[in-house]
Amino acid sequence: MEDGRCDPDGPSHPRAFPGEEAGRSEPQPAELRVDFPVSVVLPAGGTGERTGLSTPKQFCSVLGRPLVSFTVQAFERVSWIQSVVVVVAKENMELMTDIVQRFQHRKVRVVAGGSTRHRSICNGVLALGEEEEEEEGRPASADRPKVVIIHDAVRPFVEEEFLYKIAVAAKEHGAAGAIRPLVSTVIATTSEGYLDHSLERGKYRASEMPQGFTYNVIHQAYQRCTESDFEFGTECLHLALQYCGTNAKLIEGPPTLWKVTYKRDLAAAESIIKESLSGSACVITGGSAGAVTLADALQKAAAALDLELDVVSDLTGDNGRYLSEECNFIRVSVNGSCLSEVKSFLMDLEAANRALLHPLVVIWVRLCRPDEPVMPEPAAIMDVASAAKLRNILLYGIRLHQSKDPERWERSVSRVAEITSALIRERSPALVGQLLQA
Amino acid sequence: MEDGRCDPDGPSHPRAFPGEEAGRSEPQPAELRVDFPVSVVLPAGGTGERTGLSTPKQFCSVLGRPLVSFTVQAFERVSWIQSVVVVVAKENMELMTDIVQRFQHRKVRVVAGGSTRHRSICNGVLALGEEEEEEEGRPASADRPKVVIIHDAVRPFVEEEFLYKIAVAAKEHGAAGAIRPLVSTVIATTSEGYLDHSLERGKYRASEMPQGFTYNVIHQAYQRCTESDFEFGTECLHLALQYCGTNAKLIEGPPTLWKVTYKRDLAAAESIIKESLSGSACVITGGSAGAVTLADALQKAAAALDLELDVVSDLTGDNGRYLSEECNFIRVSVNGSCLSEVKSFLMDLEAANRALLHPLVVIWVRLCRPDEPVMPEPAAIMDVASAAKLRNILLYGIRLHQSKDPERWERSVSRVAEITSALIRERSPALVGQLLQA
Repeated sequence: MEDGRCDPDGPSHPRAFPGEEAGRSEPQPAELRVDFPVSVVLPAGGTGERTGLSTPKQFCSVLGRPLVSFTVQAFERVSWIQSVVVVVAKENMELMTDIVQRFQHRKVRVVAGGSTRHRSICNGVLALGEEEEEEEGRPASADRPKVVIIHDAVRPFVEEEFLYKIAVAAKEHGAAGAIRPLVSTVIATTSEGYLDHSLERGKYRASEMPQGFTYNVIHQAYQRCTESDFEFGTECLHLALQYCGTNAKLIEGPPTLWKVTYKRDLAAAESIIKESLSGSACVITGGSAGAVTLADALQKAAAALDLELDVVSDLTGDNGRYLSEECNFIRVSVNGSCLSEVKSFLMDLEAANRALLHPLVVIWVRLCRPDEPVMPEPAAIMDVASAAKLRNILLYGIRLHQSKDPERWERSVSRVAEITSALIRERSPALVGQLLQA
Repeated sequence: MEDGRCDPDGPSHPRAFPGEEAGRSEPQPAELRVDFPVSVVLPAGGTGERTGLSTPKQFCSVLGRPLVSFTVQAFERVSWIQSVVVVVAKENMELMTDIVQRFQHRKVRVVAGGSTRHRSICNGVLALGEEEEEEEGRPASADRPKVVIIHDAVRPFVEEEFLYKIAVAAKEHGAAGAIRPLVSTVIATTSEGYLDHSLERGKYRASEMPQGFTYNVIHQAYQRCTESDFEFGTECLHLALQYCGTNAKLIEGPPTLWKVTYKRDLAAAESIIKESLSGSACVITGGSAGAVTLADALQKAAAALDLELDVVSDLTGDNGRYLSEECNFIRVSVNGSCLSEVKSFLMDLEAANRALLHPLVVIWVRLCRPDEPVMPEPAAIMDVASAAKLRNILLYGIRLHQSKDPERWERSVSRVAEITSALIRERSPALVGQLLQA
């Protein structure tokens, strides 16, 4: 049963899903550097057999990319993390290797799991120990990670700051784990299914991931634990306590540590990722006065919809950074400007190799003279859009008419902003190539 | 920390969010009738103050309707539930009363809450006792509910079948409550923030809502409990045990009982509701051969996208039921047919008063001759769509050309299906009035 207290973390948005865009992230505080080697074991072993789904959650696609790739990316962008061992069921080794290649993950090694979660994690830990030995012929201990972080493949939103806390606490205390307040009251039941008693909520916490251990503690724990632990155990912190006498330091984590469990959680994950991609866009005017006027008006209208527009005349010089940082682009064309401008922009974008991890959105806004007839272009833009879609770039068009009537003009601009905002938020592949009317 | 076991209920979709469409729901098993009076207390008291959000979750809008209205509707459609007392903070009385009126809820009474959750629930229970007395001058006990179900305003997906189980068990045992398996391991912490021990997961459960009580048990529990219980207590089941000696019967509930807590949960709720609305559509051909051919081809293409189309020539006679049952309509027009067909259909739809609880989608599919120029109609359809949008009907257009080339024709039809499916799933207000190209 619920209590009446609202979790203060509750409805706040899981903070900024960190984009891979280095230039956009918050400046990194100097103290977030660790000076000892840290590696990650990421059990992704579920085969989905017991879930009745054909695809296990970690391989389910969100905006065209498997969930596990988002989680791997969350570790890869942390500079002080050396390597990530992803442990998967034997039958998924090929699938995971393919994912690593397709999304160009660099720090990852794929290892076959065991029959239970603990066996899989143990395989991952052993693989970390072997890594350097194999590769360089040095004694195994030379470059062994000092700290091993264990996480879940289906918790993609873990942030550097929290990983730092876990790593540092693990080094100091031997073991550390994330906790969260209990969402529901926990009750004990009688064997006949009646209420026996309820636990006092303040004394208990939910144990979550990530957890961190010194290599020695987690290695020893697995060396000493029993077959029964391997078979039925669930809690690494418990093994560290029981077999190494290590009382884990517990650290309250943010709600972003949440685990994708149900189908509804995939929708939630998609919404978080979409929101992280849809806060801003770069408007390229080409420099003409008419386009600049429109872009400025659009900037105001979009701001009211929480969409921040940066207006530039082109992407040369310093503005080139938008190509490597921004996920959304608006190309404004005035009077009879043609599709070739858009095509050449798409080529620049492809050259920047940006659409690998997320679909990029390009919106072509065409400002037409009041008397200009509807263009015979729909087929042409559709062809360009279909080709771009294959490279994960979503192209849409919006057409508006110039007007000297200020009220009418303002209405048109508002509608462009509204449509733009919807296209960027929804990232719908089905609507690419459409020339919409504002 | 997580265990490796997958919750078998986990990734399965929370089953059919029951629509209000009587004609579409499963036939109701005869045994799902209760022969004693049941009422509901729905605490919706959170003011959002502690959450830092301007709108408390229960009043947050999903597809244009506050969450609490979905929850109220979940009870209203259960024939054997007599009344629902919604308990809200004093400052939200007017807001809630307005919601009841706007969405035409019939069984609802709005009551002011107290300063804590228990005080609010107690107010609701007392209001149920007063209800009949006040209204009919009979002794208070005459029509008092035999069983009171207590639920949360932010768990909108509760199903009749489970309410039935709770009501029957409450009558038999005095109290009954929903439980779910624990998602995370529960651990006890030392006062210094270290792991003390972890609980054996099999012995414990998460206590969820709904819960049911005989009126006498819950009334007595609140009569006897202390100020401290009112102030700090969280668990109604606990009060029933402590003050009435009633051991609640615990019943495992489905994952649909989940509580909307975080902002991401609103996205998940929206996705569940959208999915419940987007499985089918009614295609109206007008009877012309060309339209029927297109509709049949569309039906096949849509089936591949999990969108089931029913094709009818018009909505007269028995087909009139679609007006009161279906949430999505496709009006097929052939060669030069005009917007007036769509307008008259919109009038029928409005007359059926269907768009109250969910936005309806109407897609006008226009089949054009190969040589037909792009029509000067965009402005006209935009005007019609803007007017319809005010009445919660979302109108879109799709245009395709006839073709004798079978491959090209098939591609066009596939694209219509793809766009239709996306429009129905996304229900985007920003794109109404657009005439899309297939």
